[in-house]
Amino acid sequence: MTNSIYTTAAPVARLIEELHKLPGIGPKSAQRLTYHLLRAPAEDARALAQAILEVKEKITLCSICQNVTDADPCSICDDHGRDSASLCVVEEPLDILALERTRSFKGRYHVLHGVLSPMDGTGPGDLKIQELLERLRSGEVTEIILATNPNLEGEATAMYISRLLKPLDLRITRLARGLPMGGDLEYADDVTLTRALEGRQEV
Amino acid sequence: MTNSIYTTAAPVARLIEELHKLPGIGPKSAQRLTYHLLRAPAEDARALAQAILEVKEKITLCSICQNVTDADPCSICDDHGRDSASLCVVEEPLDILALERTRSFKGRYHVLHGVLSPMDGTGPGDLKIQELLERLRSGEVTEIILATNPNLEGEATAMYISRLLKPLDLRITRLARGLPMGGDLEYADDVTLTRALEGRQEV
Repeated sequence: MTNSIYTTAAPVARLIEELHKLPGIGPKSAQRLTYHLLRAPAEDARALAQAILEVKEKITLCSICQNVTDADPCSICDDHGRDSASLCVVEEPLDILALERTRSFKGRYHVLHGVLSPMDGTGPGDLKIQELLERLRSGEVTEIILATNPNLEGEATAMYISRLLKPLDLRITRLARGLPMGGDLEYADDVTLTRALEGRQEV
Repeated sequence: MTNSIYTTAAPVARLIEELHKLPGIGPKSAQRLTYHLLRAPAEDARALAQAILEVKEKITLCSICQNVTDADPCSICDDHGRDSASLCVVEEPLDILALERTRSFKGRYHVLHGVLSPMDGTGPGDLKIQELLERLRSGEVTEIILATNPNLEGEATAMYISRLLKPLDLRITRLARGLPMGGDLEYADDVTLTRALEGRQEV
């Protein structure tokens, strides 16, 4: 017995293991979170467990825009004050939160739930592209903003969708690429700087 | 409606909020974890929620050493192969895991569950010091290793306990302070270097 290494009680080890499965939570963080929950009041831990269960029970995808929602259609699709002519296509639900925070877009959204990635085996069939095409049938939408991320996969996905939509006679745009505000030209990477030059605007 | 900022569905917002309450989880991490759980298979999310609930239900403190355990006494206190003469006093259950990983201590432990911290209002009564004194009554323990952290509060707590135990005629030791293995003398801070000099040993 003395030679076997001591391990913590099974329920503790199990929680460490489950937390360690989450993205960005290493083994040390998982331990620290576990001991935090052990010390925390029982109602706090229960509230967290309950919130996890509820999010799986109550949240579905909006049948129109594919955003996560607890009511179908979601609050954005259900908002008649928004501009139905402008549709912003994003990768993830989190991107909608980021865009909404700017308060500068009043159109509607469509969530792809991913990007094309041959490396990860994600093809067009794994994204909500079919649902996008169906939404465009009514002819209400006149502009598509392809707001996928400005990286290799995001660009490739935007390119793929723009080709697909070409026959539909829509205005298809992409968010501007350039120097981030508050950034420093000296530290900008080559690709960003090239994009900023290409996209230069008259003052 | 158009002027009010869009927020995500209530159950999603609630989970973000609950995760954000955890130490080291900022608002961005809480969002990312939430959307990860939304995408994760239902059984994975349930396993995490279950592990959180179980840890609160099944885990208690060992009545002897105050370590977290699902059986009382815990597996260390219940292990007759260990040396009952040597008692290592630590701040937190995690410290036991760290010490056990070294496989170089075969005695028993006592968990204080904190350190003296006037700033946070933690006094001797908030730590498991009374329980420590009671354990020492039998006279079985002959050496106390004060393994609190080598920082201000850890040192103060060790000092407090060592004074308290002085009348008991025990060997009272503290873990060696000095340069960490693999460290670099050039980058050592003054206090560590001073301690390393004071504690220098003949080769």
